Amino acid sequence: MTIAKAYAAASATSALAPFQIERRAVGPHDVEIEIAYCGICHSDIHQVRDEWGGSKYPMVPGHEIVGRVTAVGAHVKGFKVGDLAGVGCMVDSCRTCPSCQRKLEQFCEKGAAFSYNSTEMDRKTPTYGGYSSSVVVDEAFTLKVSPKLDLAAVAPLLCAGITTYSPLRHWKTKKGDKVGVVGLGGLGHMAVKIAAAMGAEVTMLSTSKSKEADARKLGASHFGLTSEDATFKQLAGQFDLIIDTISAPHDYNKYLGLLRVEGAMVLLGVPPEPTPVAAHALIGGRKTLSGSLIGGIQETQEMLDFCAEHGIVSEIELIPVQQVNEAYERMMKNDVRYRFVLDMKTL
Amino acid sequence: MTIAKAYAAASATSALAPFQIERRAVGPHDVEIEIAYCGICHSDIHQVRDEWGGSKYPMVPGHEIVGRVTAVGAHVKGFKVGDLAGVGCMVDSCRTCPSCQRKLEQFCEKGAAFSYNSTEMDRKTPTYGGYSSSVVVDEAFTLKVSPKLDLAAVAPLLCAGITTYSPLRHWKTKKGDKVGVVGLGGLGHMAVKIAAAMGAEVTMLSTSKSKEADARKLGASHFGLTSEDATFKQLAGQFDLIIDTISAPHDYNKYLGLLRVEGAMVLLGVPPEPTPVAAHALIGGRKTLSGSLIGGIQETQEMLDFCAEHGIVSEIELIPVQQVNEAYERMMKNDVRYRFVLDMKTL
Repeated sequence: MTIAKAYAAASATSALAPFQIERRAVGPHDVEIEIAYCGICHSDIHQVRDEWGGSKYPMVPGHEIVGRVTAVGAHVKGFKVGDLAGVGCMVDSCRTCPSCQRKLEQFCEKGAAFSYNSTEMDRKTPTYGGYSSSVVVDEAFTLKVSPKLDLAAVAPLLCAGITTYSPLRHWKTKKGDKVGVVGLGGLGHMAVKIAAAMGAEVTMLSTSKSKEADARKLGASHFGLTSEDATFKQLAGQFDLIIDTISAPHDYNKYLGLLRVEGAMVLLGVPPEPTPVAAHALIGGRKTLSGSLIGGIQETQEMLDFCAEHGIVSEIELIPVQQVNEAYERMMKNDVRYRFVLDMKTL
Repeated sequence: MTIAKAYAAASATSALAPFQIERRAVGPHDVEIEIAYCGICHSDIHQVRDEWGGSKYPMVPGHEIVGRVTAVGAHVKGFKVGDLAGVGCMVDSCRTCPSCQRKLEQFCEKGAAFSYNSTEMDRKTPTYGGYSSSVVVDEAFTLKVSPKLDLAAVAPLLCAGITTYSPLRHWKTKKGDKVGVVGLGGLGHMAVKIAAAMGAEVTMLSTSKSKEADARKLGASHFGLTSEDATFKQLAGQFDLIIDTISAPHDYNKYLGLLRVEGAMVLLGVPPEPTPVAAHALIGGRKTLSGSLIGGIQETQEMLDFCAEHGIVSEIELIPVQQVNEAYERMMKNDVRYRFVLDMKTL
């Protein structure tokens, strides 16, 4: 066992503050990582503030973790000391249920061990996330990170990257496909980059005209201003796939009207209330409304390799860990382009 | 041109009454059919009463048409005088748009020519449906009907049959799949029969315990009483596919909870108002909510052949055409097991 430095929330109403946690001794299948950078995901704020219920304190958030391997267990084959490595939203799963066997550990029937605000599969040992100096993770849930990319900007790929890559891949995005991305935030900006790298013709759909220039810089070919009804007429029946990253209330039916026959709209955001869906918006064109949650470990590695091949990283603002509370406040005002990353050597 | 006897509605508030219509002269690609039987679909009532808006009068409803060929055009290859034949919801489409090229004429981008309350592709000539003594239809939209089955009970296959067969086939229902069917009416009873014939393990999901015996007789292996919350706990995460035939308001989210990871729920019914959908009900398991509308002509033929092979017909109550208005009233009270069919020789 080692002691790691961390930033933790003591309760739903506490600011994050310095804290110490124990990391387990490196087991035969474990990798120990000195954390270099950790991205801040919106879900960190939701969980710190117990907005989804059931939060466990003290909580050390963070599931966009990159760093360097400092020790490996006797049976570890894929990593050696000095390698770059990453950890995403999960650190373990049951590995035997149908979902795990299909490499969809995020849907593990026993419930995956998430990287924080969760427990190991013993259902007792709490998990602590990446706002800390080190982490010990089973090799099976440790990702390889290419040295070709800016390491700090790789961190958000571990959640925002896989969350957008997975639906684009699952719905078989290919050259020439028309993909709409709704919302240009942490998820949306990754969706634009990855869809464009897959060869899709990307349209940014946003309520804010001010996002157009950035969207085009990130790879979008078109921009649709969704505060205007004319946009929905103009773009009707166009898209093979719409990736919807918005968690604010919005009318799904209008966006379903933008899909071609047999097109799919995939929800990544969770609005506060259920959204009314008109049956005819799906029936008229055998359209599908679906949802997607991060991705499995194998697919996360595939995403990291794809990003290394295509030179894709997140757009980030690197900050010292001491500014994490201020960063949360700025995120609540959408004042970040597009992801905060904590520089963990400041810890 | 010939004169055909028919039953028509003169307005949204008129009862159906005897009427005469003109059928076009048999063109080189046309098939003339003496109509033997025509099923009554719920959509007949909606359109007669202008409940969907835009109804055209006089209206001769009916799109579940079977009969015998009485004449064929010079270029017709697939039919000869004396053959059995069927006509479903469509009598033509543009035949060139992407949907038509993919054999999804129901989603023709120019708008298919529906069998009644519509026009031919000239967008002028009104179409009249199967509550009539004869019909003239292009061979490309005429279906072959096997003499092996009870002809009157085949009629509803042309709409209720294809409407349920198409999603079962599209979502690749196969032996051992667990399929839930919501609602045991005209559509639901066909969904049970066809899914069971495909080898699926079918569960009837109904608010009415009185449907259980029938559902089992039709091929369901299980019954879930959806008026009880316990049913939704008991069957959680079970189904590969749910076919939802209900047009009354109901909570989609409860049914989405019955799907396994990556399961699909397909809407065939259109509730009067949009239904609230919780994003997390789709995100947690990459589930899909979709809709389906009849099926293309090639798939309709495939369905008829499948039904002939498996001895599947609709459960019907055969009535003289003079009882059509009474039948509508009984259908409004769900007093039919499971489809009225008009005996057109009574016309």
